[in-house]
Amino acid sequence: MFKTVEWKNNTVVMIDQTLLPEKEIYRKYKTYTEVAKAIKDMIVRGAPAIGVAAAMGVALGACKSKATDMKGFSKEFDKITSLMASTRPTAVNLFWAIERMRKVASDNASLSVDKLKKRLVEEAKTIHSEDIEICKLIGRHGGKLLKNGTVLTHCNAGALATAGYGTALGVIRGAIEQGRKIAVYADETRPFLQGSRLTAWELKKDKIDVTLITDNMAGYMMKKGLIDAVVVGADRIAANGDVANKIGTYSVAVLAREHGIPFYVAAPLSTIDMKIKHGDFIPIEERSETEVTHMKGKRIAPAGIKVKNPAFDVTPSKLIAAIITEKGAVRKPYNKGLKALFSK
Amino acid sequence: MFKTVEWKNNTVVMIDQTLLPEKEIYRKYKTYTEVAKAIKDMIVRGAPAIGVAAAMGVALGACKSKATDMKGFSKEFDKITSLMASTRPTAVNLFWAIERMRKVASDNASLSVDKLKKRLVEEAKTIHSEDIEICKLIGRHGGKLLKNGTVLTHCNAGALATAGYGTALGVIRGAIEQGRKIAVYADETRPFLQGSRLTAWELKKDKIDVTLITDNMAGYMMKKGLIDAVVVGADRIAANGDVANKIGTYSVAVLAREHGIPFYVAAPLSTIDMKIKHGDFIPIEERSETEVTHMKGKRIAPAGIKVKNPAFDVTPSKLIAAIITEKGAVRKPYNKGLKALFSK
Repeated sequence: MFKTVEWKNNTVVMIDQTLLPEKEIYRKYKTYTEVAKAIKDMIVRGAPAIGVAAAMGVALGACKSKATDMKGFSKEFDKITSLMASTRPTAVNLFWAIERMRKVASDNASLSVDKLKKRLVEEAKTIHSEDIEICKLIGRHGGKLLKNGTVLTHCNAGALATAGYGTALGVIRGAIEQGRKIAVYADETRPFLQGSRLTAWELKKDKIDVTLITDNMAGYMMKKGLIDAVVVGADRIAANGDVANKIGTYSVAVLAREHGIPFYVAAPLSTIDMKIKHGDFIPIEERSETEVTHMKGKRIAPAGIKVKNPAFDVTPSKLIAAIITEKGAVRKPYNKGLKALFSK
Repeated sequence: MFKTVEWKNNTVVMIDQTLLPEKEIYRKYKTYTEVAKAIKDMIVRGAPAIGVAAAMGVALGACKSKATDMKGFSKEFDKITSLMASTRPTAVNLFWAIERMRKVASDNASLSVDKLKKRLVEEAKTIHSEDIEICKLIGRHGGKLLKNGTVLTHCNAGALATAGYGTALGVIRGAIEQGRKIAVYADETRPFLQGSRLTAWELKKDKIDVTLITDNMAGYMMKKGLIDAVVVGADRIAANGDVANKIGTYSVAVLAREHGIPFYVAAPLSTIDMKIKHGDFIPIEERSETEVTHMKGKRIAPAGIKVKNPAFDVTPSKLIAAIITEKGAVRKPYNKGLKALFSK
């Protein structure tokens, strides 16, 4: 299996997700600024994977610091974490991972600079390995919710969106490991095509039955009775259970309710932002117009056309049947359920 | 302004819609088999335009016949109309136009072959000019339903989908001619991108305010309160008001109702198929997988991936605020209203 993001000989290695499925190329990053750019350019994407990459980017920056005393190091460390935090605004795992790295630095301010560097690298590696374990737990809990049948997913919340195994695709993998027969429909997910380029590729590689559709076919498929459940990932979950996820998720949720199909969200606790009361407060990233007007460098819309490109939307918690985390599945009322998770 | 389809010196001339918006190239067709292929390959598309092109294709085939007696001519004419009818299954205007041409042939069986040929060419030209007039009437009736504000449209039901002016875009043009200020959001409409390639191009050329979005952004835009009305065209309307239109239309209709936004369908009477009781009986064309897996000849999905590509879906009449025709707008109950149109 491929490795989404990895720490290797004091470099961060990531599969270039902009080149999939045609080319399986691993990029080696030697500086934190390169890692920050890779996150911004979506070489790596998916909330949990962004968190892991950011932690490794911070560790990389720390390692390469030439500061000899803690004062100089701290100043540089602030610069590193600030740049990393400026890459993408919506996925909260980015800030969660950076915060965790910051805490390690402040908790260990009494160490020597060299020892702290080692400690930060260890922490980034721990975040990486924990993420895989968390995904497997999400898969185990969520797998139980799926029956034999078909599952629609949007975007890619798979091994490519995490350190491995996946959240939404982790639930599908979990169900299959528990013996269920699952066929997946993958929304292609315009404009960045995470569904066709990544989910279809990842599931096919894993020999999981997958059929590709365009985003606007989801309603048709549901009306025909061809979809039994929907499972998606999340970029940020508010305290009330509202979910920010890839643009188009909200439309799928409305359609699922119209057809009486359960709509599940799978995400680690690090995606839940208890500081945000509800979805309206989640910042939504607007990305470049060329993602919509161009495909593989070729223009597909008239020159000079006005374009909107919000990268995410918010699905209100009322449309969500359950939020599946590593500590189990939470159902309505989410305010209570999500809060309880953190004291489990 | 461009010409979608035209009869010119015993040839059928059509703008190649597969090359828009990059290239504005007019193709000249000298045989009916070429016209049939052009319809199949979506050089021309849009239900009313398909009807006009088919009539002209039939006229072209008739003109080029070498039959000297009516018996030979009739045999050839059957072959011509059969081929034309086999091009695309969903848009009923195709069959309507062919039937109208067949009726001219059978009503004028007493004429000489040469005179009948002329009569058939006249009929095709009449269908063409009538279509423009019909679109303008649809625009006049439908324009009254729109207030100052924003309109979302899906696919292209514009001048490019008709002999000129358009049905859904005719309604928008009508509203603007009546003095309203309208800004349009155009769904890009995967997989064939009629929204980005055709609607955006056509409206921009006509200096109508247009913003391009991907199909999966429609729900987000509606939730943000940015859409005041939806207007789409139709490929076939059943007697009960169920509407077959470009894939994704149904999803937009569900989303529109969720947000209390009126959803209008604009189409000529020739799109209404009173022989079909409800939408489940409308044949839905499945098109090539490569429309989904490739873009401009380049692969965008993994090789060998399974794909679904239904070209149309059916929107139940309960989701439709009004069906706008050249004889006025019809509201629920559609069974009664649509029937009444034909005796107006």
